[in-house]
Order: sequence, then C-alpha cells, then structure tokens
Amino acid sequence: MNKKIIVYLLGWIMNMEAIFMLLPCVVAVIYRESSGIWFLAVMAVCGTTGLLLTRRKPDNMVFFAKEGFVSVALSWIVLSFFGSLPFYLSREIPRFEDAMFEVISGFTTTGASILTDVEGLSHCMLIWRSFTHWIGGMGVLVFILAILPLAGGYNMYLMKAESPGPSVGKLVPKVKSTAKILYGIYFFMTVVEVILLLVGGMPLFDSLATSFGTAGTGGFGIKNNSIAFYDSYYLQGVITVFMILFGINFNVYYLFLIHHPKDALRCEEARAYLGIIGVTVLFITLNIRGSFTSIFAAFHHAAFQVASIITTTGFSTVDFDKWPEFSKGLLVVLMFIGACAGSTGGGLKVSRVIILLKSVKKELFSLLHPRSVKIIKIESKPVEHQVIRSINTFLVAYLVIFVLSTVIVSLDNFDFTTNFTAVAATFNNIGPGLGAVGPTGNFSGFSAMSKWVMMFDMLAGRLEVFPMLLLFAPSTWKK
Amino acid sequence: MNKKIIVYLLGWIMNMEAIFMLLPCVVAVIYRESSGIWFLAVMAVCGTTGLLLTRRKPDNMVFFAKEGFVSVALSWIVLSFFGSLPFYLSREIPRFEDAMFEVISGFTTTGASILTDVEGLSHCMLIWRSFTHWIGGMGVLVFILAILPLAGGYNMYLMKAESPGPSVGKLVPKVKSTAKILYGIYFFMTVVEVILLLVGGMPLFDSLATSFGTAGTGGFGIKNNSIAFYDSYYLQGVITVFMILFGINFNVYYLFLIHHPKDALRCEEARAYLGIIGVTVLFITLNIRGSFTSIFAAFHHAAFQVASIITTTGFSTVDFDKWPEFSKGLLVVLMFIGACAGSTGGGLKVSRVIILLKSVKKELFSLLHPRSVKIIKIESKPVEHQVIRSINTFLVAYLVIFVLSTVIVSLDNFDFTTNFTAVAATFNNIGPGLGAVGPTGNFSGFSAMSKWVMMFDMLAGRLEVFPMLLLFAPSTWKK
Repeated sequence: MNKKIIVYLLGWIMNMEAIFMLLPCVVAVIYRESSGIWFLAVMAVCGTTGLLLTRRKPDNMVFFAKEGFVSVALSWIVLSFFGSLPFYLSREIPRFEDAMFEVISGFTTTGASILTDVEGLSHCMLIWRSFTHWIGGMGVLVFILAILPLAGGYNMYLMKAESPGPSVGKLVPKVKSTAKILYGIYFFMTVVEVILLLVGGMPLFDSLATSFGTAGTGGFGIKNNSIAFYDSYYLQGVITVFMILFGINFNVYYLFLIHHPKDALRCEEARAYLGIIGVTVLFITLNIRGSFTSIFAAFHHAAFQVASIITTTGFSTVDFDKWPEFSKGLLVVLMFIGACAGSTGGGLKVSRVIILLKSVKKELFSLLHPRSVKIIKIESKPVEHQVIRSINTFLVAYLVIFVLSTVIVSLDNFDFTTNFTAVAATFNNIGPGLGAVGPTGNFSGFSAMSKWVMMFDMLAGRLEVFPMLLLFAPSTWKK
Repeated sequence: MNKKIIVYLLGWIMNMEAIFMLLPCVVAVIYRESSGIWFLAVMAVCGTTGLLLTRRKPDNMVFFAKEGFVSVALSWIVLSFFGSLPFYLSREIPRFEDAMFEVISGFTTTGASILTDVEGLSHCMLIWRSFTHWIGGMGVLVFILAILPLAGGYNMYLMKAESPGPSVGKLVPKVKSTAKILYGIYFFMTVVEVILLLVGGMPLFDSLATSFGTAGTGGFGIKNNSIAFYDSYYLQGVITVFMILFGINFNVYYLFLIHHPKDALRCEEARAYLGIIGVTVLFITLNIRGSFTSIFAAFHHAAFQVASIITTTGFSTVDFDKWPEFSKGLLVVLMFIGACAGSTGGGLKVSRVIILLKSVKKELFSLLHPRSVKIIKIESKPVEHQVIRSINTFLVAYLVIFVLSTVIVSLDNFDFTTNFTAVAATFNNIGPGLGAVGPTGNFSGFSAMSKWVMMFDMLAGRLEVFPMLLLFAPSTWKK
C-alpha cells in the first residue's frame, strides 16, 4: 500500500476542514460568541498539520482501489475527529463520544442527535453542525477533486469510493470537471432554497442552517421541534420540494443543463423514486386524515414526512411516532429504500432496489423457462453482470452489519422498535427513528458502546459499506 | 402446461390425506369423541374425489419445472383446504379463515395458533393438528414419491420444489429411493423420541403429539403453556436434543447410515449450525442468569428456547417475551437464519447464510485485488455460479414478501414488534413471535386479511418462496 499518498490526501482534508471552519468563526464574530475561539484554535492545529503534510507531493503517485477505499474511510474519520473538537473543547457537548456522534451524524448527513436541548447551543456551534451536512452531502473528497490540481488516473477510485450508488457515471470524461459540475449544481440549488426561505420570512441564519440540512439531506434542526417551529405551509412546502429535489440523481439536472430534457425525463430511477413518493403520500394521507382538520393538512404533513424519510433527511413537522402503525410501517420501508444514487441521500438507493427487483423477475422467468436467456436492463441498457453481483453482495453486507448492530444496541435494553429503528435511522443516514428515538426523542440515552456502533453504522452507511469494512479487514493491511 | 398430470397428482394428494385421517379417527374411537365423525365425512369426500381423479394415468406424462412448481403449490393448498374442514365443520374452530390458518400453520410446520384455549379441543382434533406437522415436515409429495409407482424423470422437479434448501442433493441416483431413505430416518427418529418421552413418564397421547411437533419442527403444543406444562428437566431436555437433531441436514444421518462417519462430521452446514446454537446459548445464558435460581436452569431454558427458535419449532418452556432485549434480539436473528437445508426446519437455512457470507468475503477480496479470480467453496467443493445467483434472488424475493406482509399486517395497528415478529414467525415457519404473538399470546387478534396474508407467508416460507410466487405470476398460466 502506498501510505505516503494516503497521508498526503489526509493533509488536504485537514486544510479543507480549516477553511470550512471560517464560517462558524464569522458567525461567532457576528453574534459576539466567545466559544468561537475554539474554532480558531482547531483551525490553527488542523491547518498547520495539514500544511506540513501537504508541503510536497509524494514522488510515487501510484494509486489503486485499495488506497482509494482506505483514503476515503480515513478521511472521514479524520474529518470527524477535528470537526468534533470545537463541541468538546467548548464543553457545549461535554462528552467526547457525544461530540463525535454529533459531528459524524453531521458529516454523514444523518441528523441523529444526542442533544436534548438544541436551542442551548451557541450560534457558531449550530451553524457548524448544519454546515457539516452541506460539506458531507456531496462528499469532501469530491470537493477536493473539484478544486485541486491532482493529476493522474487514480482519482476515479476516490470518487467511486465516496459516491452514493451502485455505479458511478462520470458526467464528462474528466473526473475533475464532473466534480465541478456536481458542486456547481449543488451550490446553485442551495442558494435558491435560501432565497425562497428568506422570501417566506425565515431569518437569514435559520434559512442558511435549514438549507444546509436540506441540501445534504441531513436533517439537523436548529429548533427543538425541528421544522414544526416554522408553522407556515409555505416554508414547510418549500422544504418538502427541496428535500425531494436533492434526493434526485444529479445526472438528471446535468442533462437538463446541457439541454437534453428528454433524456432527463427518461431517467428510470428518478421516475420510480417520484412514483414511490406519490404512492406512499397517498396511502399515508388516507391513513392519517382523521388526526387533521382537513385532508389538505393531512396531505401536507404526509408529503413532508415522506420526503424527509425517503431522502433520509430527517426533518419533521409532526411527531410521526404517534401515527397509526400502517403509516409508521411505510415510513420504515422508505428508510431502507432511500433516495436516488448520485444524490445526497442515503439508504439502499432506488436504483439498487430496481435492479434487485428485476433480478427476481428474471429468476422467476428462468425457472419457468430454464433454457431461456434474459438480461436485466435499465433504461433499455443492459446492466453488467458485475454490477448485479456487487449489488447482491452489498445487500448481504448491509444486512449483516444491520443485524449485528441491532443485537449490540439491544444490550441497552430499549424496546425492539427503538433498537431496530435507531440502527435503521443511523445506518441509512436518516436521523430520527421510532420509539425513544422518534422525532421528539434523541440518541442521548444510549450507552457509549451503542453510540460507537452507530457511529460506525453512520460512516458505513454514508460510504456504502465497503470502505469501512475494508478498513478493518486484515488483508487490507498485509504487505 | 400439462394440466392433466397436475390434476392427477392432486388426486393422489387427496387419497393420501384420506389415509392420514385414519389416525384422528382411531383417536376419536379410543376417547369416544363424537367429533370424530367429521374426519370420517371428510375422508369419504376426499377419498372418493381422489380415487376418481387417479382412476387412470394421464397419457401424456410430460412434466417440466413449471408443472412441478404449480403442482407443489396447489397440492399444499388442497391439502390445507381438506385438512381444515374437520375443525370448521365440527365448529371446534368456528371461523373458516381460522381453521385454514391453523391447518396451514400445521402443514407448514409453523405452529402459530389462533386458539386461545388449546386444551378445549377434543383429542382427535389435537392429534390431527399435531399430525399435520409430521406430514408437512418431510413434505407430502416426497412421501408420494416414496411409495407411488410414478415413473419417468419428472419427479426430480417435484422434490426440488418441495425440499428446503438451496440445492437438492439426491442421496442416491433414484428419487424414489432417496425419498424412502429420508422417510425411513424420519420415522425412526420420531419413534425413538416417543419412546424416550414415554420413559420419562409422559402419557402416550402427549408423547405422540409432542414428537410429531418436534419431528416436523412444528411446535403446536397440546397444553396452553406449551412444554412448560411438562415440568421436568429430563423431558424438556429430550425435546431440546431432538429439536436440534431434526434441524440437521438429513444427509448427515444418511452418511452415518452408510458408514461414512468422517464425511458426516465434515458437513460444514451442520457444524456451523451447531456452532451458532452453542454461541447463542452461551450469550443468552449469561444474559438471563439473573432471572433463574441457578446457572444450570438458565442454561437449560436458554438451550430449549434457542433450539426451538433456530429449528423453527416454536415450543416454549418459559415466556421469552419477558427476557432482556439482547436475548430477544438474538432469538429474532435465529428466526431468520433457520435450520439446515435438507432438514424439516424453516428460515433462510444455514447453508444459504454461509454462501451469502462467503460471497461478501469474496467481493471484499476482489475489491482489493480487482484482477484476481476467487471461487466460493463449500466443503472444498466449488459452489456453482447458478446456485449463488439463485440464493441472491431468493434473498431479495424473501425480503420483498417480508416487507409487503409487514406493511399490510400493520393495518391492524398492533405495535411494530408484534407486526414484525408475527410475519417473521409465520414466514419462517416458527410459530411464536414477540409482543402480542409471544409464547403466551396467539394470532387470534389479527383481522381476516392479515390472517390470509400470513397463510400465504407460511406456505411461501415452507415451499421456499418461488412456487407460491409462480402460482400468482401471469406468465405461468400463459399458453
């Protein structure tokens, strides 16, 4: 393994993180908060170390799959470690594992919180917490690829390891240009959301924090009752629409951008994703209509919660833990399906689900017609055998991690619903679950061990399982 | 599709069922129960219809995979329909869907019951109920293959469609001889258990009913508190051991029988199965030791419950719904793993789990070494690519049915634990779950719709998903 290049990349991660921390520093100055000093301190350490490590390029730039996976996993751990320090050092989150949990939840765009009183945090901490969503949503290595003068063919491995979804489509031949286009779309859509929220009367600080949370499909709220605080159909409606938009494969936007609207509309994954949202909203609206004054109110809250869960954002406008079991059951299913590949959302991803379902259909057909040959197609293009195999293995690895995590977490003796949905909500990067971790609850009641397990799950979920597994596989570290 | 041969086989199923009903008739005579008359009545109808349908062999005996799957699915439905009639006609189970649920639960060796008072049933009903486990455990079509003079190469499809596990090993070249050997082992082990229970002082009737329930890994008890009624470490210990034995791949016994003990001991699946049992018993014993007077008592009950759940039998000696969440979580995991392929147990099957885990290991390896070629092996024999693909599809189909069932059942508004484990317990052919369907609960509280869904799940679980799916696939019925 080429360790020098990994260290070099980690150095760049630290440089980036130091730059990102400028935002909370500015906020601290505006709100005259003394806790901003901790951001300056961490910036100094992080930036200096980063500069030392990136002082000169390693001579050997050879970079293979192994280095890609290890770099990505370690980058996210380093990012989280330094990101947690301001919370911990300022004692605004007094325990180290809680500070780590909170910031991993941020970067992985989970949005699960150990805070019992969010509104007790200072503004600079709040904005940093929400900003981690925005940073983590698109992936910080993708960001580095977009702006850094790294040459060579190795960077595709980084993008592969960090991007959500079964197969990475480079939009354009060059990885660097692809990364730039993605971040461009991401930035633009975030700005539009901020403006629309400002128009609806939301303060600038809240608009920024909320838009960061929406764009990264993260879900950290800055109010104790999440988005229920903004009691306006317009504001909640804007957030609903943007959650759905950020859950769509960014390729679709790119196709619109280059004036290929027909191709964009033909995207099978996006259509299935919107179809699932439509059907679930319909069912839930009918199921909960009794608890609301009008069918429109039921529809509004059903749409918000469905969008929030399928995109794995995790905002809430009502306590859906109190909804009938049928609606809760549907939401749990959405937790696993997740958003589109190539979006900022988590979960299994709609395209994986489509391919898995098609493989069942194919198998049934070949049971009836043993000599026939049938090929799985997406958008009339055949899916490579290798991709299908990889998705199947992904599913199995996913289930194994899920089961083991649930069993370990159950040592804390919460009820089954809480254990199951706590793991589902962290592993799929959603945020709230049901029971004790429902929209009005939080993750503070778990033991340190359960919290570390869920931190692993959040990282494994965000990085699509394999990089985290490989980090702990002995054969990765063998000569 | 060759419909004539399917009808012919269904005729044989009816003949067999009429013969099987002799047992409850004898019991009714011994206990002088008038409800025995209903068995005579059903026998008459079932036998006459069967004889008419099997009067002459169809000319065209061509029999392919399609016919195999459809025959198996329909056989089990016909078997269940006639099997439920004595319960329903005698009004001992007044609702038709309840009678069907109970008897499908019997034949599929699930052991889930809608009865609130088992002891209220007459003896002939009780023995029929338990006998359905024994009949369904090995598979009634396998039985027909063992004794009927059906010639031709088509019978392998029947066995394939009815036998549990990812791939069917014929023990000997002829299907008929294989079926005979399997039933021979099955019969012998049942008799040994009956004798050992009699030795321990259990009455003959109870010994028979309990042994039928153990052999088929069914789990219907004839007492309201299941095996807790027989408050004897010896009796409960015998049942523990036999549950474990009936969960082992019958190939292992065959290898012992033909004096190949070394090959028998090398069986990877059986070793993994016993290993999983050992580890779980250890963990649960440690977790529950506080609730028992001695560590031995904790071990005894941990072993009984673990054996009961992993083999998907479903007997209980204590109310494990009251155990700590960690132990309950482990039991839920066992529900899904299930017993060995080629045993009478249900669930995913240990061999499938092994192959799935090995495929993850292989994928991780090939991520690190993209150009390497690695082959999955079981007992140092390579596993065919086709088998792995089929297991993957099985897993996906399994998850889809599981999710849809849970969502539909949740319309009854039981809590998530109940919904989830009710579907897990029926689909994996276990019997009891947690919450309202725990060892002291039952399935009577569900709506008719949920019951029909779970009946489908029990059949789908027993027949390993594909036959039931194909029965409802339009392309099966196309010309």
